[in-house]
Amino acid sequence: MNHRVTLDGVFPLDGGGTLRDITVEVRTWGRHRSNATLVCHALTGDANVDAWWPGLFGRGRTLDASKRFVVAMNVLGGCSGTTGPTSVPAEGVAPYGGAFPDVSIRDMVAVQKAVLDQLGVTHLDLVIGGSMGGMQALEWAAMYPDDVGTIIPIAVGSEQSAWAVGISETQRQAITSDPSWKNGHYSEDAPPSSGLSTARMIAMFSYRSPTSFDARFGRSEDESGFAVQSYLRHHGESLVARFDANSYLTLVGAMDSHDLSRRRGPREAILRRIKTRALVVGISTDVLYPVAEVRQLASALPNARFAVLDSPHGHDSFLIDTEALEGLIAGFLNESSATTTTSAQGASWA
Amino acid sequence: MNHRVTLDGVFPLDGGGTLRDITVEVRTWGRHRSNATLVCHALTGDANVDAWWPGLFGRGRTLDASKRFVVAMNVLGGCSGTTGPTSVPAEGVAPYGGAFPDVSIRDMVAVQKAVLDQLGVTHLDLVIGGSMGGMQALEWAAMYPDDVGTIIPIAVGSEQSAWAVGISETQRQAITSDPSWKNGHYSEDAPPSSGLSTARMIAMFSYRSPTSFDARFGRSEDESGFAVQSYLRHHGESLVARFDANSYLTLVGAMDSHDLSRRRGPREAILRRIKTRALVVGISTDVLYPVAEVRQLASALPNARFAVLDSPHGHDSFLIDTEALEGLIAGFLNESSATTTTSAQGASWA
Repeated sequence: MNHRVTLDGVFPLDGGGTLRDITVEVRTWGRHRSNATLVCHALTGDANVDAWWPGLFGRGRTLDASKRFVVAMNVLGGCSGTTGPTSVPAEGVAPYGGAFPDVSIRDMVAVQKAVLDQLGVTHLDLVIGGSMGGMQALEWAAMYPDDVGTIIPIAVGSEQSAWAVGISETQRQAITSDPSWKNGHYSEDAPPSSGLSTARMIAMFSYRSPTSFDARFGRSEDESGFAVQSYLRHHGESLVARFDANSYLTLVGAMDSHDLSRRRGPREAILRRIKTRALVVGISTDVLYPVAEVRQLASALPNARFAVLDSPHGHDSFLIDTEALEGLIAGFLNESSATTTTSAQGASWA
Repeated sequence: MNHRVTLDGVFPLDGGGTLRDITVEVRTWGRHRSNATLVCHALTGDANVDAWWPGLFGRGRTLDASKRFVVAMNVLGGCSGTTGPTSVPAEGVAPYGGAFPDVSIRDMVAVQKAVLDQLGVTHLDLVIGGSMGGMQALEWAAMYPDDVGTIIPIAVGSEQSAWAVGISETQRQAITSDPSWKNGHYSEDAPPSSGLSTARMIAMFSYRSPTSFDARFGRSEDESGFAVQSYLRHHGESLVARFDANSYLTLVGAMDSHDLSRRRGPREAILRRIKTRALVVGISTDVLYPVAEVRQLASALPNARFAVLDSPHGHDSFLIDTEALEGLIAGFLNESSATTTTSAQGASWA
C-alpha cells in the first residue's frame, strides 16, 4: 500500500535548519499491524523493498507480510517523493535546489518516527537496513530504545570513517566542480550530469571489490575499449537518469554526519548504552566499511551478535547475495525467538 | 649527473604511432659503470630517486653509488623533461598536447634500452621499480632477457586488472569531462585543473588504505570540515601545480596497456618463459594491486621469490615504509649473491 504522510508545521533539524510541512512517501505490506518492521534503504535506494531485496522479501522469509507489518519510506532529502531538494517548499514556487538544508541520519529517523506515530505504529519489532539504512537502524536504537525490539544494521560502522568521508568528498568534488552545478541552483533541464556520473563511477569502486571486477571483466574488450570501462560509464549515466545531484550531495552529507557518539559523549560509553538486541552483519570483501570495522561496532554494543556475509561482491553484497543474507538473518531471528535473550549475550558467531 | 639524451630519427610505437627525435632526461649516480642498476619511477614520480626513495638510496643501501652505477630516467609521455605531451615536436611550434600518441609500458622500456645503449650500458645488473615502475621492470625481463640480471617489481601484477583499469577510467572521466580539457588542446594557462584535481583525489584512495586514513584523521575536523577533506583537496591541488593533464592521461593509458601476455601468447606460457631472477614484492594493505594478485604473479614466474611488505599505508607503502622495503630487498640480494641461484627456486618467503 502507498501512503503519503504530511508532518504539519515546522520540523527542526539536527544541523540547525528547519523544514516546514515535510511530506513522506511510505509503502506498507501486511494487514495486521503486529510485528511492525521498518526497512531503511541505502543511498540511491527507495521504499520499493520488494524490488531490491528479493531474498529477504516474501512468504517464508524475514520480510513476510503475512507475519509482519512491513514499512519502508523514501528517505528525507532523497528524490523519490519524500521532501528533498527537488521538492517545492510550502510557501515557494521553485524547488529548494541548492537551498535545501543539511540533514543527518538522526533527522531521517526522527521523520520516520513522526510518520509511524501518524500511522498508529508505536512499536517496531525490527528495524533493518544496509549501509545508509544500517546507520538509520543504529540511530533508531540510540534515539528510541523503548520503541524498537531488534535492529539489524548491515555493512556499516559506529561512525562514518575518515576513509568513507574521503570517498564522499571525492564524489562531492566531482559534482561541485561540474560548471553546470552552479552552487546547486541548476535548472531541471541542465543538471550537472557529468559530475554526478563521475561521482557514481567513484562510488561503484567502494561498492564492489577487486575480485568481483576481475572475475566479471578481466581484460576483455568491446568496440570502445575495456569492458569494465563501458560498464562504469553505463552505471554513471544510468544514475544521472534517475537521481538528482543535490539529493545525492544531501544524502552523502547525511552519511558523513553518521557518528553514534556525536554530541552525546565518549564513543565507548555511548555504544555501551545501546542495549537493543542487534544482529550486526559485516561483509567479507567490503572495501567501504571493512569487515574489521563492522566487527568492532558489534563488539562495542552490549547486546549484539556479529555475523559475516561471506561474498565476493564487496559492499553491495547485501543487495546481491540476498539469499545468503536471508539465511544469516533467519538463523538469528529464529534462534532469538526460541530462547530468552540475555543482555550478556555479547558478540560471537563469526 | 644529469644527461639529456636524444634518440635521433623515427621511433616506432607499440600502438602504431611514431615519435621523432625523442629526448630523454637521465640521472646517474656513481663513477664506475659496473653493476648498472635502472630505477623505474611510478606514475607521477621522476628520475630524482635520491629524493623519493630515501630508505633504498645511499651508502650501504641497495642503491649505493659506490657499488652500483645507478640510472633513472624521466619516463616517455611524462612532463618532467623527457618527450611527452608538453614537448614541442621537432617540426612544430606548439606542444603535442592532445595529439601526443598513445604509449605503452613496452615503449617506455624500448626507449630506456636505446638510451642505455647510447650511454654505453649494455647490461643491467638490476631493474627495480614499484607500481608503473614495476611494470617496466617486468617488461625489461620480457623484452631483453639477456640484458638484465635481476628484476624487483613491487606492488604490481602480471597485467593491469579490471579493477585497476576501472579506477583509471574514473580518473579519465574526471579529466575529460572538465570543459577546460577541450580534447587535450587546452592552453597552458587554462588547463583542466579541477578534473585533474578530482582524478588525483580518486587515485589517493587506491594509493592508501582504510587503516591509514582512519589512524591519521579519524573524525577530526578543522575550520572547513573534516580533516580528511582538506587533505584530499590539498593533494588534488598540489598535483595540478606540478603535473600536466595530457601526460597524466598518457601514463594512465600506458598502465592500462600493461599485460605481459598481450600479443605474445597464452598468459601462463608467457610468464613461464620469463626466467630472469626476480624478487616480487606485494604490500599487505594494497587496495590497487591486492597482495593476492602480486603473489599470483610471483608464483607464475619460474625464477621469482615473493615477499610481503607488511605496512598499513596501502599501495604507497613502497614510498613510505622505505626502510622496511630496503630490509626485504637487501636480504634477498645478499642471499642471492652469496649462493648459486637455481632456476627451480620458485616462489616462497611469505
